[in-house]
Amino acid sequence: MIQVNGVVTDNLPVTDRGLLYGDGVWETIGIQQGKPQLLEWHLERLQTGLAALGIQSLDWDTLREEIRAACAGEERAILKLIVTRGVGQRGYSPHTLLPPTRILQVTSWPEYPAAYTATGIRLTLCETRLAQQPRLAGFKHLNRLEQVLARAEFGSEVQEGLVRDYHGNIIEGTMSNLFIIRADGAVVTPELSQCGIAGIMRRYIAQTLEKFSIECHIQPLALVDVEQAQAIFMTNSLIGVWPVCEFSDKSYNIPSLIRDLQAEILVLP
Amino acid sequence: MIQVNGVVTDNLPVTDRGLLYGDGVWETIGIQQGKPQLLEWHLERLQTGLAALGIQSLDWDTLREEIRAACAGEERAILKLIVTRGVGQRGYSPHTLLPPTRILQVTSWPEYPAAYTATGIRLTLCETRLAQQPRLAGFKHLNRLEQVLARAEFGSEVQEGLVRDYHGNIIEGTMSNLFIIRADGAVVTPELSQCGIAGIMRRYIAQTLEKFSIECHIQPLALVDVEQAQAIFMTNSLIGVWPVCEFSDKSYNIPSLIRDLQAEILVLP
Repeated sequence: MIQVNGVVTDNLPVTDRGLLYGDGVWETIGIQQGKPQLLEWHLERLQTGLAALGIQSLDWDTLREEIRAACAGEERAILKLIVTRGVGQRGYSPHTLLPPTRILQVTSWPEYPAAYTATGIRLTLCETRLAQQPRLAGFKHLNRLEQVLARAEFGSEVQEGLVRDYHGNIIEGTMSNLFIIRADGAVVTPELSQCGIAGIMRRYIAQTLEKFSIECHIQPLALVDVEQAQAIFMTNSLIGVWPVCEFSDKSYNIPSLIRDLQAEILVLP
Repeated sequence: MIQVNGVVTDNLPVTDRGLLYGDGVWETIGIQQGKPQLLEWHLERLQTGLAALGIQSLDWDTLREEIRAACAGEERAILKLIVTRGVGQRGYSPHTLLPPTRILQVTSWPEYPAAYTATGIRLTLCETRLAQQPRLAGFKHLNRLEQVLARAEFGSEVQEGLVRDYHGNIIEGTMSNLFIIRADGAVVTPELSQCGIAGIMRRYIAQTLEKFSIECHIQPLALVDVEQAQAIFMTNSLIGVWPVCEFSDKSYNIPSLIRDLQAEILVLP
């Protein structure tokens, strides 16, 4: 089911700035038992993105009501939410305030093999780098060609690719965030002020670690930090927590902390 | 008039990767007396972009025929041509080869004030910087949020904004390319291997200069180079050549070379 501005349709005007310039933001939200998971955090990040792009704010009550209605009765599904600057005239100028376009799409849950969660995934290092652009870092906008290029580098022989910036900092996976457990037990996830998407599951994991009285360090990470880690795991709203069993010709164990985190996210608010 | 894959319609499926990820390329082509101007160069750049993104090649004969039909009878108009990777499934992976989506839109020519060409424009320096990403430099893809952010910085008090990269190199205007005429008479336009769009009019101007036996230097440019230039002009397929009369609180003259270039592009192949 897809709806655009409250109307059920599969189509969008060709003149929407979401297509013309990638001028918009989006969220991928898990639905369980009719409830969109971590919805407030998703809407918060959406709002951060709209503000960063100077897109007119939404009627949040209408959006919430549409989300509620779209999720109702869905046992286990995905809600994709896109908000663009709207249908525009020619040219980049965003000065004419347009009513934003809101798109809601509910699709079936992608059933990844259970082994990815149980015994871990193979991770590869991508050659594609992320450009440093602080103005577009952290939130989830529609300019995603770097992710497409990075994802093009690997097939089904591995499950995720790790992407660096041009300074060599490890940033994230093509569709997920990275955490490492260092040899000394510290948990670290990359700092994302220059590029990358600050995932909602990343935030939830950081909060869960805090609940476990484990500090989550957010700092720059080099390739050697990942290679020498005791354990590695990748997160996003749909995959939850995937341990990494293999990276850079090295095998990694799955410590109990990863199992505890997996257990903790089985039921999400 | 808009057509998508040969069918007249204003709409595109919401699941087109052009919207989801900005996964495509585009061209803005002038039409005069029914003829798309510099068409082969536009198609060449389009093809460069498709190859860089690994998008399946087009049926060029069909596209040419659609372009010919769309332009027929148009005295003076614009053809916007968008090609996306197509309608995709969930996820960034471009491995499933999809039939690309081709969108043709003919709109009226934007009638800029004649003074911009005659007496020049005011140019401002943007704070928004372009990220260095060689994988996406030179061609015209649909990830254009940097241009939107830069364009948001100025209103109608100036006509164009100059954008730098994060190293301080001057790259281009928000919608145009930059040329300077140095005090020693040399003509220079910025090198675009890290970011920026290599405009079709930029290429035509470079070729025209060659015809005039004037070398066009393509090299990195600093802000001071622009400020100390004898003259500045901006180019794109629709504006042609706009001299800059004011930049950084300084006035600039319009030498005869700029008039010669303007005369030369009145009729384009």
